[in-house]
Amino acid sequence: MEFMKGIFITFEGIEGSGKSTQTTLLCAALENLHYKVFRTHEPGGPPIAEEIRELLLNTKNKEMLPETELLLYSASRAQHTGEWILPALKDGKIVVCDRYYDSTFAYQGAARSLDMEFIRILTDFATYHTNPDLTFLLDLSVEEGRKRIKNRYPDRLESEKDEFHQCVRNQYLALAREYPERFVVLDGSLPKETIHNMVLTKVLDYIGAQCEL
Amino acid sequence: MEFMKGIFITFEGIEGSGKSTQTTLLCAALENLHYKVFRTHEPGGPPIAEEIRELLLNTKNKEMLPETELLLYSASRAQHTGEWILPALKDGKIVVCDRYYDSTFAYQGAARSLDMEFIRILTDFATYHTNPDLTFLLDLSVEEGRKRIKNRYPDRLESEKDEFHQCVRNQYLALAREYPERFVVLDGSLPKETIHNMVLTKVLDYIGAQCEL
Repeated sequence: MEFMKGIFITFEGIEGSGKSTQTTLLCAALENLHYKVFRTHEPGGPPIAEEIRELLLNTKNKEMLPETELLLYSASRAQHTGEWILPALKDGKIVVCDRYYDSTFAYQGAARSLDMEFIRILTDFATYHTNPDLTFLLDLSVEEGRKRIKNRYPDRLESEKDEFHQCVRNQYLALAREYPERFVVLDGSLPKETIHNMVLTKVLDYIGAQCEL
Repeated sequence: MEFMKGIFITFEGIEGSGKSTQTTLLCAALENLHYKVFRTHEPGGPPIAEEIRELLLNTKNKEMLPETELLLYSASRAQHTGEWILPALKDGKIVVCDRYYDSTFAYQGAARSLDMEFIRILTDFATYHTNPDLTFLLDLSVEEGRKRIKNRYPDRLESEKDEFHQCVRNQYLALAREYPERFVVLDGSLPKETIHNMVLTKVLDYIGAQCEL
């Protein structure tokens, strides 16, 4: 099944909130229903964006300034959106992306205290004015997130203090209040199957509504 | 000799115009006069910025979109300016930089046709509102520039067509007309010693004027 224009779905949340798991479950379910699905993630995607990701997450880059970090995320997003996401949407696919620009408002805007208005202008440029149709925020306490990732080797951003991640969580919740038309906030502490069913129901409702238009 | 605030000097021009040679000659002359000099170049500088430079100039990155290129140059500049240039200026040094933000207006703005107003906002952010005190534009025809670099292995930007470099040259001249208070346009086809003497005279005049203030 195809759409005239694809559907763009993003997952957001702090580390350990289950974005990657839910992305996998959603893509598998949609493929079972014979939808054309394109799964991706940020930072990264095409080779150039993955090289930028490596710079961003490498713990050896301790000298990286917040301004550099913001611009690198945006560079990676410009490549990812232009080279992969827009062609997939044009091709009528359902694009499911683990993190997108809301992460930048939460991490670089709120937690790194960079100018939100500038980030808005920058994001419009780096996304070619593309917005997700649906954004699932997997809301979870920082404490619970930490517990879940304790066996992972933390990357440069995961290594930040709890207050940093608290700030990220609060900003996500603020974004969800600001853009209620695309945000769906889910309790990330629920069992993954429960969350998956809520996500899938919402996505199928959205597809149904599109088809009626 | 030191200044309360350093002096920021940049060299601009198309490939082969002699920026690197003039940077070397100017730094050596100023050091001979016992000034504290800090020599640097863009893209690059500190390790993180050099890693971004490698991404930018690597000819294998043929898929790089103009938007990605612009944001990577800006990311590199944010790191370079914050980590190296601003501390050197604060330390009262004469910073001499081979290329700075005028290159972005010429290459990404004019030659890649990206939005100049956005580049202005982006550049203010990436430079922490820092501007050169003096910019020497070594003006040269594209044909002459090509001849001079014909024995170099061209990087990703040097590999662009002649029209691209013509567009860069024209934009440099337009910038020099727009900012006459800091631009000095020199005929890049003159012998290097002649150009060097003109540059040094202008720099020493500028220093003299600062000391009288």
